[in-house]
Amino acid sequence: VAKRLEKFKTTIFTQMSMLAIKHGAINLGQGFPNFDGPDFVKEAAIQAIKDGKNQYARGYGVPDFNNALAARFKKDTGLVIDPEKEVTVTSGCTEAIAATMLGLINPGDEVILFAPFYDSYEATLSMAGAKIKCITLRPPDFAVPIDELKSAILKNTRAILINTPHNPTGKMFTSEELNTIASLCIENDVLVFMDEVYDKLAFEMDHISMASLPGMYERTVTMNSLGKTFSLTGWKIGWAIAPPHLTWGVRQAHSFLTFATSTPMQWAATVALRAPDSYFEELKRDYMAKKAILVQGLKDVGFKVFPSSGTYFVVVDHTPFGLENDIAFCEYLIKEVGVVAIPTSVFYLNPEDGKNLVRFTFCKDEETLRSAVERMKEKL
Amino acid sequence: VAKRLEKFKTTIFTQMSMLAIKHGAINLGQGFPNFDGPDFVKEAAIQAIKDGKNQYARGYGVPDFNNALAARFKKDTGLVIDPEKEVTVTSGCTEAIAATMLGLINPGDEVILFAPFYDSYEATLSMAGAKIKCITLRPPDFAVPIDELKSAILKNTRAILINTPHNPTGKMFTSEELNTIASLCIENDVLVFMDEVYDKLAFEMDHISMASLPGMYERTVTMNSLGKTFSLTGWKIGWAIAPPHLTWGVRQAHSFLTFATSTPMQWAATVALRAPDSYFEELKRDYMAKKAILVQGLKDVGFKVFPSSGTYFVVVDHTPFGLENDIAFCEYLIKEVGVVAIPTSVFYLNPEDGKNLVRFTFCKDEETLRSAVERMKEKL
Ligand SMILES: CSCCC(=O)C(=O)O
Ligand SMILES: CSCCC(=O)C(=O)O
Repeated sequence: VAKRLEKFKTTIFTQMSMLAIKHGAINLGQGFPNFDGPDFVKEAAIQAIKDGKNQYARGYGVPDFNNALAARFKKDTGLVIDPEKEVTVTSGCTEAIAATMLGLINPGDEVILFAPFYDSYEATLSMAGAKIKCITLRPPDFAVPIDELKSAILKNTRAILINTPHNPTGKMFTSEELNTIASLCIENDVLVFMDEVYDKLAFEMDHISMASLPGMYERTVTMNSLGKTFSLTGWKIGWAIAPPHLTWGVRQAHSFLTFATSTPMQWAATVALRAPDSYFEELKRDYMAKKAILVQGLKDVGFKVFPSSGTYFVVVDHTPFGLENDIAFCEYLIKEVGVVAIPTSVFYLNPEDGKNLVRFTFCKDEETLRSAVERMKEKL
Repeated sequence: VAKRLEKFKTTIFTQMSMLAIKHGAINLGQGFPNFDGPDFVKEAAIQAIKDGKNQYARGYGVPDFNNALAARFKKDTGLVIDPEKEVTVTSGCTEAIAATMLGLINPGDEVILFAPFYDSYEATLSMAGAKIKCITLRPPDFAVPIDELKSAILKNTRAILINTPHNPTGKMFTSEELNTIASLCIENDVLVFMDEVYDKLAFEMDHISMASLPGMYERTVTMNSLGKTFSLTGWKIGWAIAPPHLTWGVRQAHSFLTFATSTPMQWAATVALRAPDSYFEELKRDYMAKKAILVQGLKDVGFKVFPSSGTYFVVVDHTPFGLENDIAFCEYLIKEVGVVAIPTSVFYLNPEDGKNLVRFTFCKDEETLRSAVERMKEKL
């Protein structure tokens, strides 16, 4: 294995999903629904395959899908963009992240991450040869320590990566936090890489796109995907939206990472994005009901549950149960209780920081959530 | 754009396909069929979508697909491999290439390419920080200059990339060439990265996998995809097969480039790989008929046509028509004749080497091939 990847292990999501299967445990670990995506989107994919939309798409996307993405971006942010020059379709948001890092970051550039963070950020920054500066968000509210952020920004700081709603904590960056970060970025000529895959799962406050703040569009790459919003995580359709000078770098990396993205699924995604508002409202309502079940259940079990404003995750403190750390707790939970959660230490540069916290997902049908809670009540 | 990608332009395939649309030209440029993939594979994809196989696949592949790939590899090479430890499913062979480079090559490692070569090799090696040593295959037969290769192998040579059947020339590496390269690799502890996406389009001789030669499996990454063999280039299903110690590197990079590959399409690909031999025989027969039409047509038009043993490409010398170089010729061909071909200078480190050659594809229905020839007869 090349040195740039030496320190990384099999991603925790894969490890945990494989353990779930092996032990027949209820999987509240990796974030994928155990229910299916909407019929109208599946029908659109079937139609595209039947219609022979099965050859290479244009590298940066099927024109209709680029248009649909620009239209959705306008609806979400009020910004009018050029679908031909500012939108890049990728194989999931994970590829959008990799293409952004490899397309825009030079060796030695510094990139600021907020811990806990999704593991691919660190790995793709390592591929790009970046220096990582990590700022830790701490419970209970995971607020941004602004002074720490200010002193982290140096001359060679190229970008700040923001994930909101935030995996794993469910934190949503507040308007105040985003505006402060925006000022710092403009002042210091820093880019923002926004991972917004949970933007439609914002429960307690409205999601704010950094791109929509004054002066920020021109320095922001906004990344998103179909998977979470349409319960089709296995289709791997993502995208990056950025002004032309940044899109150029993203597209160049994308061209050589995957070249193009599944054609029939892009046609289906085009139909998905044109869903009526009621679709998104219902999605949110469903998830709020699921969240209520899981959060109450976890409290009843005896966890300290941290408030989650968005995403389909919730983080708890497991220390009332006396296990050594998050890994030990998750192992016990799988083997002795039959439930899978995600240890959070893997989301930190310094694993110690996550040793008290584990993440549960509520993207499962209500019965599954109830059974998981029952198992924990019985055996923890 | 990051420095590692500064020198690269929009890939020639995208450029040319966009020009084809703009000028209403017949597209014999980018390698995608203008006919559809087989119904039994499309049906399998539709069934998978209907069956709810729409959530994240395991990172390295849906178990049944990994098994089917191992079974096909056994049929093709005689080698028995472990589908759990030696197979990685990727988003097209392009991603397999990127993951192999980023997962196994360190900055400063030297990798040998044979020019002309597919553009992503150079770009992904640049991402990995590799040094490229380029050996040019020259017409008419594009034979490997063995002495040159021998003196190119140095202490820091990490790998040789071989693409056979070869894009763009249609050359197939002979048993003698492959055996000589194998000895050199074993002697000097060098890896082989094999791009075999056209292995089922081998017309004039049998395709030989480097992995099947004595002592070579353990030092070879074999890359392939569904697109060319099943006329479904837009589905973006590829894979890399390698011994566990090399697979580890490929998988680590893959985990962070795309994480996983489309779930329903992997189920369909599983069905595809179990196609009876008659499917592959018929595919070959069809393509031989297409090739005969195009090659005879190009000769009639007045090109010097170089023999193509495999792939769905054929390379010609355009100099009888008096244009300055391959780019000028292709521009003239699009605008004045209404046919798209691919200039080959983009496949060389030194563009001069390709200035007399252009590539045509015959992965189009016979009528399209005939119309293209007619246009050229009339207007060239
Ligand atoms: C690509 S799996 C990781 C993303 C996710 O769904 C998770 O955090 O569980
Ligand atoms: C990914 S497009 C390039 C591969 C191909 O089909 C071609 O060489 O035309």
